[in-house]
Amino acid sequence: MNYQKRIKKLQGKLRRKKVDALLVSKPENRQYLCGYRGGDHGINETSGLLLVPAKGKVHLLTDFRFKLQAEQEVPWAETVIYPKGALKLLGRLLPDLAVTSLAFESHYTLHSFAERMTATLAKKRIKLVPTDGLVEAMRVIKDEEEIALIRSAVRLNEEVFTEIHSTLADYPTEIDVALAIETTMRRKGAERPSFDTIVASGANGALPHAVPGSSRVKKNGSLTIDMGLILDGYCSDMTRNLVAGKPSKRYRKLHRLVRKAQLAGAAAVRAGVRGCDADKAARDIIADAGYGDYFGHSLGHGVGLAVHEEPRLSSRSKKKLKAGMIVTVEPGIYIPGWGGIRLENMYVVREDGCENLNSDSTWLDI
Amino acid sequence: MNYQKRIKKLQGKLRRKKVDALLVSKPENRQYLCGYRGGDHGINETSGLLLVPAKGKVHLLTDFRFKLQAEQEVPWAETVIYPKGALKLLGRLLPDLAVTSLAFESHYTLHSFAERMTATLAKKRIKLVPTDGLVEAMRVIKDEEEIALIRSAVRLNEEVFTEIHSTLADYPTEIDVALAIETTMRRKGAERPSFDTIVASGANGALPHAVPGSSRVKKNGSLTIDMGLILDGYCSDMTRNLVAGKPSKRYRKLHRLVRKAQLAGAAAVRAGVRGCDADKAARDIIADAGYGDYFGHSLGHGVGLAVHEEPRLSSRSKKKLKAGMIVTVEPGIYIPGWGGIRLENMYVVREDGCENLNSDSTWLDI
Repeated sequence: MNYQKRIKKLQGKLRRKKVDALLVSKPENRQYLCGYRGGDHGINETSGLLLVPAKGKVHLLTDFRFKLQAEQEVPWAETVIYPKGALKLLGRLLPDLAVTSLAFESHYTLHSFAERMTATLAKKRIKLVPTDGLVEAMRVIKDEEEIALIRSAVRLNEEVFTEIHSTLADYPTEIDVALAIETTMRRKGAERPSFDTIVASGANGALPHAVPGSSRVKKNGSLTIDMGLILDGYCSDMTRNLVAGKPSKRYRKLHRLVRKAQLAGAAAVRAGVRGCDADKAARDIIADAGYGDYFGHSLGHGVGLAVHEEPRLSSRSKKKLKAGMIVTVEPGIYIPGWGGIRLENMYVVREDGCENLNSDSTWLDI
Repeated sequence: MNYQKRIKKLQGKLRRKKVDALLVSKPENRQYLCGYRGGDHGINETSGLLLVPAKGKVHLLTDFRFKLQAEQEVPWAETVIYPKGALKLLGRLLPDLAVTSLAFESHYTLHSFAERMTATLAKKRIKLVPTDGLVEAMRVIKDEEEIALIRSAVRLNEEVFTEIHSTLADYPTEIDVALAIETTMRRKGAERPSFDTIVASGANGALPHAVPGSSRVKKNGSLTIDMGLILDGYCSDMTRNLVAGKPSKRYRKLHRLVRKAQLAGAAAVRAGVRGCDADKAARDIIADAGYGDYFGHSLGHGVGLAVHEEPRLSSRSKKKLKAGMIVTVEPGIYIPGWGGIRLENMYVVREDGCENLNSDSTWLDI
C-alpha cells in the first residue's frame, strides 16, 4: 500500500481545513493511513493514536506494550510512547510541533476524553476541532489493489462455506456449525472472522442477528449462515440460506422472492445511483409480494477494512454511489415463529453497473 | 442474577444525583443491569441502549434486528424499537416519561453522539448530565454468585491450557497454538475468548501484546501464552510461560524472578490496600534485581463481565481495594531481542488477604 500517498492526500485536506494536525483514533483509519496493525480492545483500550500534522512527520503515539510492533510496522513514522497516558503526551508534544489547532475524530472519540483533552489543551492555547469522516471519505473508494484484496477475502470465505456445506451433517447444532466455520477460516489463513458468525436454524432465522446456540440443525429445517472473514486486513461478508433436506413450498417461494429482490437491488447498483434508490429497487419486490413489513433492515452497507462502513444502501441514504465503492446487497424476510431468509453478496460499484465478487450459487436454483 | 435489585440500587443513586434517568450505553453495564446479551459490533453499532428512570419502568431501546432477542431476554423491561435511530426515539420517548434531566455515560458515548443528543434534547428542554462510572462502581464488587461464575471461567480456561499443553508438539507455529486454544475453548463450552489469545515464541515474547504469527515454536525456545475465555458472561485471564524442551539458565532465573514478584504482589492484595501498593510490592522485587526498566506495564486489573475493568493495580491507582473485587496479578519482564516472561493469575480480594482462583502450576517449579 502507498501509505505516503494517503498521508499526503490527508495533509492537503488538513491544510484546506486550516488545522495544524489530525489526531486519528479510529483503528481502521489508523491502519489505512500507516498500516499499523496493533489490536484495540474496544474504544477504551486503544493500541495507539496517529498524529498527522498538516506538514511534517507523522507520529504514532502508543504505550509500552505496542512499542516494538509500532516501530516494526511503521518505521517511517516517529513512534512515541506515553507512559502516563495520551493526554499528558499530547500536552507536551503538540507545542513542540507548533500545533495550535488540533482536529480530532468526533465519531470515534469518547465524550469524556474530548472533555479532558479540551481542558488539557486549552492551557496550551491549542484549539480542538471536531471532524467526522475525513479519512472515511478516502477509504470509501477502493483502488484496484484494495479490490483485489477484498476479492481474495470473498473467495476464501466462499471456500470455507463450500467446505462446511459439504460436511454439514457432521455438525449437530448451530454452535457446532459456527465453530467449524470459524476454525476453518483460520486454518485456511484468515486473520479472524470479520464479525461473529451467525448460524440460525428454523425459527431462529427470524432474528437477523441470531447468536448461534444449542439448537439442533433439523432435517428439512432451514439454516441461515451469515459469515465473513478478514484476510490481509480486508473483510468479506456473505449470507446463505439452505435446508438440510427437502425445502417446504413456503421456503422455496420466499427464497425465490428474496433472490429476486437481491437481483433487482444489484441491477440498480452503479455509479450515480443513490443508496436509497438501490434499497427501493429491492424493497419494492418484497413489498409488492406482501412481505414489506418483514424486511426491517436496510439493503446493504460498504465493506473494506471495516465489515460495516460507508456507503449505506438504506431508505435514508441520499448520497450517490461512486465507482470503486464496495457494497453488500442483502435483502431478507423474517417471519417470527417461522424463520427467515437473507441472501448477501458483495459488489464493486462500476461506472456502468456493478461487479459481483461472489461466485457461490448454493441454493439459487431452487 | 437479581437484576431488579441492581436496578433499584441504581435508581437510588439517580435520585440522589437528582437526575430523572440514566441512558446506559456501555454493553457490560447494560448486561449487568438487565441480562441482555445482544452483541455490539464496536461502539458505532450498538445492539441497544438501556434507559433506567429514577422511578418507573426500565426501557430497552434497540433496532429491528434485536427486537425478539430483547423481548426474550428482558421480558420485564419495555422493549422499544427505533426505526429511525436512537435520537429520534429519545426525542419522543423522554417527554412522554416526563424526563427533564438525562444522565449519560460520558466514558462510553461518542463525542459526536453527545453533541447531536444535546442539540436534539435541548429542543425538548431536557438537560444532559455526563456521568462516569455509576454502574461500574456497582460492578467492581462481585457477589458470591458472580465469584462462582468467574471461578468456573478460570477453571475452564485452565482445562483448555492443560489440554493444549499436553499436545503442544502438534502445533508447529504460534498461530496454530492460538487456534487450537480458541477452538478448544469453544468446544468445551466457552462463549468465546475474552480477548485475542496471545502466543509469542522466543524473541516475540518481548512484545507484551504480541499477535500470533507464523513463527515456529522452537525446541528449547520459550513460549508465552496469555489466554482467557467468557463463560456465562464472565471472563477469565491467565498467562503462562514455558519452554518446549530445556530452559536456558537465563530463562530459569528470570522465570523465578517474575514468579517471586507475582507472589509478593499477591501477598500484598487485601481489602484496604491501595492498588499502587500492590503494584509496588511486585515491582520492587523486579527493580531490586536490576530489571525495573523491563517491566513497563502495570501489575494488574479487575476482571468481571469485562476482561479489563476496575480496579487497576498500577503505580497511579491510589484507591483502596475492597473485599469482593477480582484482580489479576501479572508482573512481566520483557527484553528486546531475547523475549519475555509474564505470569498471570486471578485473585479475589478478601478482608484478610486474597484467594487465588487459579490452581494450575505449570512451570512454577523450575
